[in-house]
Amino acid sequence: MKSNKATIHDIAAKLNITASTVSRALNDNPRISDETKKKVLKVAKQINYQPNHIASALRSGKSRLIGVIVPTANRNFFSSVIRGIEDHANILNYKIIISQSYDEYAKEVLNTEALINARVDGIIASLGKMTENFDHFHKVLDKGIPLVLFDRTADVLDVSHVILDDHLGAYQAVDHLIKNGCRRIVHFTSAQRINIYRERKRGYEDALKANGLEVDPALILYSNMQLEDGRRLTEETLQNKVHFDGIFSSSDYAAMGALQVLKENGIAVPGQVKLVGFGNEPFTSFSDPTITTVDQRSISMGKITAEMFFEILNNKGAELISKKTIIKPELIIRDSSK
Amino acid sequence: MKSNKATIHDIAAKLNITASTVSRALNDNPRISDETKKKVLKVAKQINYQPNHIASALRSGKSRLIGVIVPTANRNFFSSVIRGIEDHANILNYKIIISQSYDEYAKEVLNTEALINARVDGIIASLGKMTENFDHFHKVLDKGIPLVLFDRTADVLDVSHVILDDHLGAYQAVDHLIKNGCRRIVHFTSAQRINIYRERKRGYEDALKANGLEVDPALILYSNMQLEDGRRLTEETLQNKVHFDGIFSSSDYAAMGALQVLKENGIAVPGQVKLVGFGNEPFTSFSDPTITTVDQRSISMGKITAEMFFEILNNKGAELISKKTIIKPELIIRDSSK
Repeated sequence: MKSNKATIHDIAAKLNITASTVSRALNDNPRISDETKKKVLKVAKQINYQPNHIASALRSGKSRLIGVIVPTANRNFFSSVIRGIEDHANILNYKIIISQSYDEYAKEVLNTEALINARVDGIIASLGKMTENFDHFHKVLDKGIPLVLFDRTADVLDVSHVILDDHLGAYQAVDHLIKNGCRRIVHFTSAQRINIYRERKRGYEDALKANGLEVDPALILYSNMQLEDGRRLTEETLQNKVHFDGIFSSSDYAAMGALQVLKENGIAVPGQVKLVGFGNEPFTSFSDPTITTVDQRSISMGKITAEMFFEILNNKGAELISKKTIIKPELIIRDSSK
Repeated sequence: MKSNKATIHDIAAKLNITASTVSRALNDNPRISDETKKKVLKVAKQINYQPNHIASALRSGKSRLIGVIVPTANRNFFSSVIRGIEDHANILNYKIIISQSYDEYAKEVLNTEALINARVDGIIASLGKMTENFDHFHKVLDKGIPLVLFDRTADVLDVSHVILDDHLGAYQAVDHLIKNGCRRIVHFTSAQRINIYRERKRGYEDALKANGLEVDPALILYSNMQLEDGRRLTEETLQNKVHFDGIFSSSDYAAMGALQVLKENGIAVPGQVKLVGFGNEPFTSFSDPTITTVDQRSISMGKITAEMFFEILNNKGAELISKKTIIKPELIIRDSSK
């Protein structure tokens, strides 16, 4: 079979520059302007250019590996961010290896060490729910290894990161519920030291206040927000005869658990209780009724995280600056809140 | 905070052996009997022993990393197998790093090279759908790096592996549909060079024949078996006015697509068409109706795969033997087939 693979010569021809300029641009040579790098990258994507990893690794002496630490790769959000990172990194001839913390602090620490042992050129991470000590990340920075966090960060950790505007996402979700008639909205949340849950709760509270409604602490329910938690919390709320006409859950999984229990108890969704989740997991469009949710623009987050990472990787000394990017979420209105 | 972490001394005390024996057992020293190793491992799990990775890595000079290559970590099946591998490996003081092929051959090759570059002690992989050339895996074996495949393998690749009895899973699913009155069963399948799809199709055909029914090639539909494929194939089947009263899909995703289209067309499931998927993805128990499916015992598959891997790792020379283990699946009967 004859190969028709795109080469750097094809990119060079399209841009009317030399192949060696293309090669340098793809290897992020500082002598090449950012503008040229962007053009080269764009054309490379267009013609589906696949770099030759081995030759390049031999030349550079680098591992050309980026370690990604996530709580679990088996969530649409994390897997989509990883996909976004990977698509960008592959073009630049870097490979991604993933390790999972399962939200356990000890595993996150050991994974970080394992990635350093694997000689990665940098680390991209999203914090586990239990992480309160950040020595393992300080060690990464002390070794001069580029580090970028995404989505789950900590205020005390001054590291470059890309996060979602969780406050806005929650605000829009709750405002939407109120505009559709809800007055007593239950909120499912989790550990408040995690930025994302704290910000979503703040968005919930601010939307209530802006609409002249009271924040009732009895309606704010804390859990690990798995499907079972959503089931249990909804069952308890029904048993305790707490009056509510809406649920805003910081997790699609807990929202799905709530939906199941409401249906089992003959409570119509959205007729009697309206429901909004968070995360746009695929099952929210499979369920009956489909679940309104907040999309976290995960592919964009991955792309922007990768861009930030390579900017830091290619500008040694830039570790003194911490970069922060905030992405706007999107409310996806489906049947559960109509 | 004072640490109450379990140590090797706690394991030693429980088994009435020395701490150094425990240490050797956990490091798979060949001087320790398999029986003792098993006992130590069992107690280590019971008391939640967490080994100190760094000290041990310094002692051994090994990376203590295992690379896992999967099409995507964002499938319940793959993530559960990885969890099973990881739980076993962590006890033995090994860490898992994951790389995703996205079912692309080029990525699978580059990932394999990247893992070798990361100095992994071995590789565990499940083949991408497009993989027909196995030079990258032969390279792994030639370097004396232990390799174990799981679930998706190829007949021409004589490598140790752990697979599901896909024929049995499909046979049971189709036999169940027939026992519940189905006579015209559509089958969704994919590329027949992949063992799992070929075996499931064979199971479908054998169950029909064993029940005195004819195999109608018009009812066997080939696709990539994503949700959209299930939708499209079901729409086409309805448009073509093909008579059918059951669907056996080799993928839960395609089964979900079929369910959506049947409901949209006012066709009762299970009343008019009964449906069985394959994989036991979590959404099959969220949907309305819940979907009957075949469970692949993914956690067991991970555990058995890890055991096989360490057996090979600890018995250099054993690469001459290829080990094969076949796991029995379980039919999970839910509402879509009742």
